[in-house]
Amino acid sequence: MTATSHNNHAHNSSSVKDEVLRAAQRGRRAAVELAKITAQQKNNALHAIAQALITHADDICAANAKDYQREESNGMKESLLDRLKLTSERVGDIAEAVRTIATLTDPVGEVINGYRLPNGLHITLKRVPLGVVGMIYEARPNVTVDAACLALKAGNASLLRGGSAALESNMALVKVIRQALEENGLPSDCVQTLDEYGREGATEMMKARGYVDVVIPRGGAGLINSVVDNARVPVIETGIGNCHIYVDASADMEKALSIVLNAKTQRLGVCNAAETLLLDKHMDDKAAVQILSALMDAGVRIHGDPIVVALMQALGNKCGVAAVEKIVVAQEDDWAKEYLSADIAVRIVDGVDEAIEHIRKYSSGHTEAIVADSSQVISRFVSAMDSAAVAVNASTRFTDGGELGLGAEIGISTQKLHARGPMGLSALTTMTWIIEGDGHIRQ
Amino acid sequence: MTATSHNNHAHNSSSVKDEVLRAAQRGRRAAVELAKITAQQKNNALHAIAQALITHADDICAANAKDYQREESNGMKESLLDRLKLTSERVGDIAEAVRTIATLTDPVGEVINGYRLPNGLHITLKRVPLGVVGMIYEARPNVTVDAACLALKAGNASLLRGGSAALESNMALVKVIRQALEENGLPSDCVQTLDEYGREGATEMMKARGYVDVVIPRGGAGLINSVVDNARVPVIETGIGNCHIYVDASADMEKALSIVLNAKTQRLGVCNAAETLLLDKHMDDKAAVQILSALMDAGVRIHGDPIVVALMQALGNKCGVAAVEKIVVAQEDDWAKEYLSADIAVRIVDGVDEAIEHIRKYSSGHTEAIVADSSQVISRFVSAMDSAAVAVNASTRFTDGGELGLGAEIGISTQKLHARGPMGLSALTTMTWIIEGDGHIRQ
Repeated sequence: MTATSHNNHAHNSSSVKDEVLRAAQRGRRAAVELAKITAQQKNNALHAIAQALITHADDICAANAKDYQREESNGMKESLLDRLKLTSERVGDIAEAVRTIATLTDPVGEVINGYRLPNGLHITLKRVPLGVVGMIYEARPNVTVDAACLALKAGNASLLRGGSAALESNMALVKVIRQALEENGLPSDCVQTLDEYGREGATEMMKARGYVDVVIPRGGAGLINSVVDNARVPVIETGIGNCHIYVDASADMEKALSIVLNAKTQRLGVCNAAETLLLDKHMDDKAAVQILSALMDAGVRIHGDPIVVALMQALGNKCGVAAVEKIVVAQEDDWAKEYLSADIAVRIVDGVDEAIEHIRKYSSGHTEAIVADSSQVISRFVSAMDSAAVAVNASTRFTDGGELGLGAEIGISTQKLHARGPMGLSALTTMTWIIEGDGHIRQ
Repeated sequence: MTATSHNNHAHNSSSVKDEVLRAAQRGRRAAVELAKITAQQKNNALHAIAQALITHADDICAANAKDYQREESNGMKESLLDRLKLTSERVGDIAEAVRTIATLTDPVGEVINGYRLPNGLHITLKRVPLGVVGMIYEARPNVTVDAACLALKAGNASLLRGGSAALESNMALVKVIRQALEENGLPSDCVQTLDEYGREGATEMMKARGYVDVVIPRGGAGLINSVVDNARVPVIETGIGNCHIYVDASADMEKALSIVLNAKTQRLGVCNAAETLLLDKHMDDKAAVQILSALMDAGVRIHGDPIVVALMQALGNKCGVAAVEKIVVAQEDDWAKEYLSADIAVRIVDGVDEAIEHIRKYSSGHTEAIVADSSQVISRFVSAMDSAAVAVNASTRFTDGGELGLGAEIGISTQKLHARGPMGLSALTTMTWIIEGDGHIRQ
């Protein structure tokens, strides 16, 4: 994702830059129109988009088939092919998600704060759209619709850059969305794709300071780091999760068992899955063995520190469990890894303080969980974390816009500015101070 | 402010980088301690700092005298010398400002949102410190104390980089602050200066992603742009103000006159002073002439469009006012200028719509004002602005943390993410989601 990187299209750099800046300017003008219309009008447009997606499902799937066949013959991984694939049923699900966005409260116009000053000035702090939002994501056609519609609901124009592997699908989806916007009297430039400009287009968008108000990368660490490295536009980093669970000796071990299993195995490839388990050395060995055995029975490979490995091998030898093969010795880099797979790093720690130390050293700042009964231990842990979310006697999997009741989610911010944790519609807005007087001047 | 730029100290780049990263790590550890203490303890430390500044006023002024003499002989501008100069009285004012910070409500721990989900999970969104805050500013010793104490109050460790011209002063001030912190049982590394590493130190700080949580530049356009260009750490842009005033034909012209005069002349060198005046062509010529004459009588040079120039020259010829010499024809770049001087760009526009068009084209997004009586015109103007603040029948000079009742101000954000407009203590915080369950797992 650098200015020198190549893409499979014949644009020279300067013309790509011009095209991107022009697209951003068209988006700005569209956003000005969008800022004037009512929530009702926006919701009507969203329902129209949902309907149009269903009406044109065949064209969309046909375009998607081209992407799928190309990537399949290019040898794309099965899991990625599955994320790329569209069926009429999946298009239906995407349309349903758009209808859900229509039902959400419009964040624009919310009065965040308002008061009257002693000198009589009326102050109102109001929520307003950001303007032009750039989205950079991987080859997942559903994100194209999701991002465009969330931005639209919050009153923003969007510039979309999906993975080149989904080029045909994204083009088809954006075409349908733009047509639906026009038919509803909204400027079609509220939603634009930059996919035809490949990586160069994405890089130019990240550099378009003053034209693009924010760039939100959605994807893996590589994508997000390249955006942070190249961007001159403000960025919201999302979703790298090296989530920890600490099980304290004071924990209810049944709860600990089900929370650990849920956090690791309920869904493997997600950013809020647990990747490291820290066990208090003061807990009962039997409980530790029970938790680790349950993980292994669930098909999870354990990357353990020497104590863990010794413990489980002893167990293996004692009662002949076929556990041993599921255990490997953790290397230093295992502690920092986001596996996104049936693997977990396990370490024995000397109580909550060593757990805190370990987490502060290796965490990606997403979600950390503690299972404990001692309120002293819990508050010590909670206050020492430096992450977007802390789960107490609950699974890390709850760090999710839907689960926390935000309705929709643009992504999970792992940065500290603007938005942190699950981002709802308000993360796609800013605010403005309105100062109303009657000829007031400053003394 | 680039990695290749030189500074008058003998550090090689790699060692400077190491020193800055080590300082950031010390700051992180100090911030962890700071997060644990009470508001009372922080306030006691702030009062101790205020007292220590007064106790050591002589040493501080002696150090400042070295800076002053050096810069005077280097030919520094009078206005900059004045901002650099410290007297025991000014040190007293700085100490008083610190006491004021002690009186402010601690933002840390504020519950921003809290609710219980249907499944029984308790959700609490809590305000927490950012961690390590980097400040880059110009040769103004008072900012050193102000920034350090505001960061401290919000529970953050600060890395300070002031202008090299204030090196001795900043070193002396930071020494006093650190001593006061230690004497109050707080880690002295809550406040550190990077001044000895010059511009290289600043550049390394901006690149220290993962070590520094945010960098806030306070100063002119050059400083702020160089930070945005070089930073890999999140940045909060502050205070470039090309503020506009639009006077509508419906305005009360007496109010218009006093607001325009106040916005332009009450203080010249500040970001919330008016730099461009837009006059509705439908307003009474006499009123326009009255406003412009008043500006000129106040010593303001008018950079007018051809109509304005013709209007005032006619006046000059008619009643022999010595106005003409105070008028020049505006060039294209006048419309985008932040004069920070006794100059104002003046243009006649065709009503509110042309005013909106002009402002959206040239504004820096700080503050725009309208003087009008027609509520339709006012709401049209307010909803079309894309700036941090909009003043209605009030001076642009009210966009200020103190004036708006924030108590203290770190700066005025002209960006849209995280903070917009005057930034109080809460702009130096982030938030964390606390998810409390009783063995809850995700279905």
